[in-house]
Amino acid sequence: MPNPVSSLAANQAELSLAERFAHTRALMESLVEPLSDADATVQSMEDASPAKWHLAHTTWFWETFLLREYGREYAGGAGGYRLYNEEWPFLFNSYYEAEGARISRFSRGMLSRPTLGEVLEWRAHVTRAMEALLDNRALSDLIALGIAHEQQHIELLLTDIKHALFQNPLGPAMWDADLAPASAPQTGEAGWHEHPGGIALIGDDENGFAFDNEGPRHRVLLEPFALADRLVTVGEWQEFIADGGYGTASLWLSDGLAWVRENAISAPLYWREDEHFTHTGWQTRDPNAPVTHISYFEADAFAAWAGARLPTEFEWEAIARGQDGEGLPQAHNAEAGNQLGKASPPLPSGGSHLFGDCWQFTRSAYLPYPGFRPAKGAVGEYNGKFMSGQCVLKGASCATVRGHSRASYRNFFYPHQRWQFTGLRLAKDL
Amino acid sequence: MPNPVSSLAANQAELSLAERFAHTRALMESLVEPLSDADATVQSMEDASPAKWHLAHTTWFWETFLLREYGREYAGGAGGYRLYNEEWPFLFNSYYEAEGARISRFSRGMLSRPTLGEVLEWRAHVTRAMEALLDNRALSDLIALGIAHEQQHIELLLTDIKHALFQNPLGPAMWDADLAPASAPQTGEAGWHEHPGGIALIGDDENGFAFDNEGPRHRVLLEPFALADRLVTVGEWQEFIADGGYGTASLWLSDGLAWVRENAISAPLYWREDEHFTHTGWQTRDPNAPVTHISYFEADAFAAWAGARLPTEFEWEAIARGQDGEGLPQAHNAEAGNQLGKASPPLPSGGSHLFGDCWQFTRSAYLPYPGFRPAKGAVGEYNGKFMSGQCVLKGASCATVRGHSRASYRNFFYPHQRWQFTGLRLAKDL
Amino acid sequence: MPNPVSSLAANQAELSLAERFAHTRALMESLVEPLSDADATVQSMEDASPAKWHLAHTTWFWETFLLREYGREYAGGAGGYRLYNEEWPFLFNSYYEAEGARISRFSRGMLSRPTLGEVLEWRAHVTRAMEALLDNRALSDLIALGIAHEQQHIELLLTDIKHALFQNPLGPAMWDADLAPASAPQTGEAGWHEHPGGIALIGDDENGFAFDNEGPRHRVLLEPFALADRLVTVGEWQEFIADGGYGTASLWLSDGLAWVRENAISAPLYWREDEHFTHTGWQTRDPNAPVTHISYFEADAFAAWAGARLPTEFEWEAIARGQDGEGLPQAHNAEAGNQLGKASPPLPSGGSHLFGDCWQFTRSAYLPYPGFRPAKGAVGEYNGKFMSGQCVLKGASCATVRGHSRASYRNFFYPHQRWQFTGLRLAKDL
Amino acid sequence: MPNPVSSLAANQAELSLAERFAHTRALMESLVEPLSDADATVQSMEDASPAKWHLAHTTWFWETFLLREYGREYAGGAGGYRLYNEEWPFLFNSYYEAEGARISRFSRGMLSRPTLGEVLEWRAHVTRAMEALLDNRALSDLIALGIAHEQQHIELLLTDIKHALFQNPLGPAMWDADLAPASAPQTGEAGWHEHPGGIALIGDDENGFAFDNEGPRHRVLLEPFALADRLVTVGEWQEFIADGGYGTASLWLSDGLAWVRENAISAPLYWREDEHFTHTGWQTRDPNAPVTHISYFEADAFAAWAGARLPTEFEWEAIARGQDGEGLPQAHNAEAGNQLGKASPPLPSGGSHLFGDCWQFTRSAYLPYPGFRPAKGAVGEYNGKFMSGQCVLKGASCATVRGHSRASYRNFFYPHQRWQFTGLRLAKDL
Repeated sequence: MPNPVSSLAANQAELSLAERFAHTRALMESLVEPLSDADATVQSMEDASPAKWHLAHTTWFWETFLLREYGREYAGGAGGYRLYNEEWPFLFNSYYEAEGARISRFSRGMLSRPTLGEVLEWRAHVTRAMEALLDNRALSDLIALGIAHEQQHIELLLTDIKHALFQNPLGPAMWDADLAPASAPQTGEAGWHEHPGGIALIGDDENGFAFDNEGPRHRVLLEPFALADRLVTVGEWQEFIADGGYGTASLWLSDGLAWVRENAISAPLYWREDEHFTHTGWQTRDPNAPVTHISYFEADAFAAWAGARLPTEFEWEAIARGQDGEGLPQAHNAEAGNQLGKASPPLPSGGSHLFGDCWQFTRSAYLPYPGFRPAKGAVGEYNGKFMSGQCVLKGASCATVRGHSRASYRNFFYPHQRWQFTGLRLAKDL
Repeated sequence: MPNPVSSLAANQAELSLAERFAHTRALMESLVEPLSDADATVQSMEDASPAKWHLAHTTWFWETFLLREYGREYAGGAGGYRLYNEEWPFLFNSYYEAEGARISRFSRGMLSRPTLGEVLEWRAHVTRAMEALLDNRALSDLIALGIAHEQQHIELLLTDIKHALFQNPLGPAMWDADLAPASAPQTGEAGWHEHPGGIALIGDDENGFAFDNEGPRHRVLLEPFALADRLVTVGEWQEFIADGGYGTASLWLSDGLAWVRENAISAPLYWREDEHFTHTGWQTRDPNAPVTHISYFEADAFAAWAGARLPTEFEWEAIARGQDGEGLPQAHNAEAGNQLGKASPPLPSGGSHLFGDCWQFTRSAYLPYPGFRPAKGAVGEYNGKFMSGQCVLKGASCATVRGHSRASYRNFFYPHQRWQFTGLRLAKDL
Repeated sequence: MPNPVSSLAANQAELSLAERFAHTRALMESLVEPLSDADATVQSMEDASPAKWHLAHTTWFWETFLLREYGREYAGGAGGYRLYNEEWPFLFNSYYEAEGARISRFSRGMLSRPTLGEVLEWRAHVTRAMEALLDNRALSDLIALGIAHEQQHIELLLTDIKHALFQNPLGPAMWDADLAPASAPQTGEAGWHEHPGGIALIGDDENGFAFDNEGPRHRVLLEPFALADRLVTVGEWQEFIADGGYGTASLWLSDGLAWVRENAISAPLYWREDEHFTHTGWQTRDPNAPVTHISYFEADAFAAWAGARLPTEFEWEAIARGQDGEGLPQAHNAEAGNQLGKASPPLPSGGSHLFGDCWQFTRSAYLPYPGFRPAKGAVGEYNGKFMSGQCVLKGASCATVRGHSRASYRNFFYPHQRWQFTGLRLAKDL
Repeated sequence: MPNPVSSLAANQAELSLAERFAHTRALMESLVEPLSDADATVQSMEDASPAKWHLAHTTWFWETFLLREYGREYAGGAGGYRLYNEEWPFLFNSYYEAEGARISRFSRGMLSRPTLGEVLEWRAHVTRAMEALLDNRALSDLIALGIAHEQQHIELLLTDIKHALFQNPLGPAMWDADLAPASAPQTGEAGWHEHPGGIALIGDDENGFAFDNEGPRHRVLLEPFALADRLVTVGEWQEFIADGGYGTASLWLSDGLAWVRENAISAPLYWREDEHFTHTGWQTRDPNAPVTHISYFEADAFAAWAGARLPTEFEWEAIARGQDGEGLPQAHNAEAGNQLGKASPPLPSGGSHLFGDCWQFTRSAYLPYPGFRPAKGAVGEYNGKFMSGQCVLKGASCATVRGHSRASYRNFFYPHQRWQFTGLRLAKDL
């Protein structure tokens, strides 16, 4: 089996935009190598998309926002860039209202055509067509956005295909299980990063790419707090279950309790007996690994049970700032190691597993920072319009492309969603 | 393009059981030749199943009810037949409670594995294993049932894949459109088959295979009536629409009106402007072709609009009896001709299009005949347990395997369903 | 407590139309005497209507189809009859499309206004206004229909208020329990009414009022059969439960099994432990009483468990014909006796409990008789448009107004409904 | 008509706890005087409760948390307080898990019993029983909470009964319309309260009653901003509609757009043509009145359309602090004046209509303040468990009991809810 994300080990900061473009395009394609056309077509729920759709949508992005808009100007030729297929934008627009009509979200799984092969041909065509634009400094922000966008969809592709394969009672594995590095152990009592409070600078420092929702950089006043120096583990979660955590009403938010009862939730997603489902099929759970695939509701109830609380996004960022440089080691939990085939040498557990294991719920709602304004045009729909009803998650998971993580990053999901690699880190007041 | 159902032209009555088994197995396989693994995996709604699932389920039927039960006795060997894969029965049992648990109906579209290729290998394995049983007279009834079962799933495969391809905005065609025979014209005023009433013998005459629900043969008293000598056409349906038929409450059954309003129904399934969707993609509608893909509710409303009514299943059968011999010509509407690639020579329109164009709604509910008793065991679940809430349809459609039609045949669907080739023939009292 | 339906004991056949009109109007009003305005306003489900709504809807019927249409002609005066309130028809039309828009069915429970008192005043006004029309022979058919309509709503009022009170955890009683006559015992083995088969005359004999759906009278050919001479009892149903009937898949229709599982059905409606809910509150069940409040699905499964079947509507009618004269005694089960306060002397159990205990499911679907045509105009919506998806029930229940029962009567409900007094009587082939 | 809330004009701060208890109990009772038992029983949606239920639930609160717990200790007697009715707690517990099972939320409308009269008798009984506890200083916090709780339910009673009456096509009025004071005009361009930013003290200053969610008091760092000095008006909202606001995708949050489309929203709740529904029935809208009955989604879209934004809860509070004393005048929009019968003299528009017209959406999510901890026991369920998915609203509406408003008050609703008197006030960055 190839090591699909080994190319990520390179320090992306040292790469040119064109190199990062090429790497990212190639990475997504390498990840779907184990998939059949049928695997890549299945949509398991409305939240998830088929692998093929991710391959196509990211290609649509380049075609729509770069080639179609700037293909004439920069690429020369009389007519500029012509769409590869006039009908495909309708299929592969995700949610950009300004880009017109599109198929309903839950119809993505109906698209047996174009085939996986045809989509890969389209990718190759667009990748080549982009070459003429990659060196134009006037487009570099938009290109950096496109790369970041594609990296996000690499993570979604991995979590969505995991969910799709999980639907199959056969429990098919996408990759072999024998490439797993040892996880950095998360044992013993958690220690605490203490913070004295005060005014912290939060948000993108404009020293490199960031999404619009990470800024503007602004000041936030923090009260004294402590943040755990490790993640909550599978073993601790098993204690929570054994202690009747899912059945103890007083631990739960009201909406969370309703969700637990309506869906008969009694464990993280993907658990059965002493196993969990992974990209390498059903595997025995490691009690020292970070717990993943939990919802905000579950994370909040666990924190209540543990006599702690979730951090705010600001507290998390204040601790993490300075620890997310490209040169710093990142931890990877064993499951992720297995799944993504990340090879040796096992990385030391730097940064308290802040990045590279799982996204960590905060108690902050996903809202605009002071002075936030969405970009003009369709690209402005990228982040701002999702700022209601969702939770901010910080960090990065084992499925996040290396180089895509930073302290100011704001991921966001609804409080019941848990098909991402979501976990938690406790906090407390001082 | 191969002519997928030309082998059906042979008079099945002259074939041995073994020959019919081989023909039927091969026919289903030939029909999926244009399909990719992804095409064969998609499930478009709960009523429909993936093409791959039909291929597998019919194979499960032979393995479960023949090879597993009788493989030791007849096929020799110490251990008898061993299941090809112990996990697959859970995937491919349809609804046989006596055969244990199974995946939920709407999860069939999640099965990207086993692949189409693996299912075809399983088919070949089971087809070969069956050879040892095909000549055993003690099993001939069960084998005939298995063949009929597989023929039914051939029709479902065709209607289900049509529905799946229809979901795709690209409107992909499964077959070329250039093999279409001329449809036997259905023009001019309809004439009437008059019947004086009296006692009719209804149901299977036990002169060949029939499903249990076609018997026991029994007497029914009919009042004088007339049955139209042709089907309602596309052109007539267009008049119904132009006359405001879908918006005229007084024409509709109460449940039908609610269905029309909730689903904003204004035309048969698969219509848009002057086209309809077919296995050969979007095609211009032929006004002389029989209308198809209508629900019972629509058929009933049309009949009210036309000042007529639907026939009972008994009236239909009384007229049709004697006209369904294998030697008799069958009509095929142009759409069906296109779709199934039925080649020349075009068949003359015998039997008033009773068979071979579309299933025809009757006003009879699907209920047991006097003295009906389901067979013992799991096979007894074949028909009897569906006897509530459904309508009887008579005839056979362009997607019905030749040799699978007879006057006593009772097809059944819920009154809102219309993804089958369903049409209507008017009746009236005399 | 008054005996609310004692006036029914009078032989209605000897009464004039005007007397029957007056009796029926007064009866409905007497039944709501124990109800508060709030009781009469509550709607417990979409199938049921508030008691107040029944009082008003039946009044709307007279106002719309009699007074509004014929008030000028017969009642004299320059302007004819003027609507009591122009806004109320919108509230109290049930389902007559030809009579224009109306509130949605499940909004009936929102109508705290008009009050119960205002509705009763409207009733009195309309009852008086009708006096001028009651003797007109030209209107006698329509008036007879209106009386029968109101009698049907008396039964619905009783079953709907029972369901509404059942929602209240306090289990409020509508009437005292101390007026219960002894039920005619239904003990020992059931005997059988045998029928040799042959041609039976079915449907209304036009010797008195009947609904349009009871005709035309026509011939039906019956095979030899037997019909049980008593109803299935509570005790027998308890045996069915004890034998695991609700969990035995092979006994159930497919739709029935899905209904049982989705709704976690394990007993008739209104049962808890050894009690059932009645108009007199929670009462201990009598094992000899006829079982009631079951669905078609349950009735069918019980019959399968008992090695019998449900009769057809024709079989039931063939046995019952001649036994439903006004002079014949009618049985009343103890629950009904309690609920309706039917006083002594207890009636002997004549006619094998065919009438007066519970409606009895048949296996016949509710479909038009040969030659059936709905009446012209809005009144034509009375029955015909409901002829899909429903089951025919025969007999009459303890909540049916005396004089409203006859052998040709066809009641109809969906196979899952069970808030009416529905029971069963077994049949078998001979 | 009595002036139901005139007693509120008294400065509650000068009243003793016992006087405030008596006032509050009497006020709720006076408000239901125009309601029949049936009016008080209707539940129009899951979010709303019947008026009778509010009367009962607030009584249950005193009985459960005061009389049951402390009745023995303080009220003397051997056995302490005995529940008025052992079965009623099951009916009238709202959501306190620690207090055991309760009827499902949407079953509250099934409770025709106990009657309105019986509930009022219970109220009188409990009010009297409470007299023995009102002077105990040890209970004063709990009693203050109970009063505040009952005041909240007074507002809910008013908004819920408005919604219930609105369901009735007759548009019944609860009160006469002739008591309406002139609304303080909100005309001309809005001015702005400017704020230089800096550290603000936010939250309850512990100088009087506050809910637990209003504390702990803490510091928040604000950037420079401006808050409009008046509310958005009906006339401005009409401009938004005329400009196609509801159909302009770019103005809307993604969830908001889905909500608008699924529910075909095109105006605030209660609008039709140039009227709106009020407690005094259908009335012509006043363009100068504050717009009310909008959702967060609508408020956010309007702000985008106006080139502004919603304030945070901290910005709003920073401006409002010091303006919510009992002695300060409060504005009341004309609708509210009509509805609540607030008599002359019209109050001047003090405090920029911050209080007394409508609740004002902020962009802040409803989350715990730093250091927040719910109280122990069932009372701890009061606020904390609702801290997910909801929006903070500030101010107070025309239906808020005078004395119940303060700058630190945090009201909260889901972003789609709009049956409360919800409006908005714009903000912008400086």
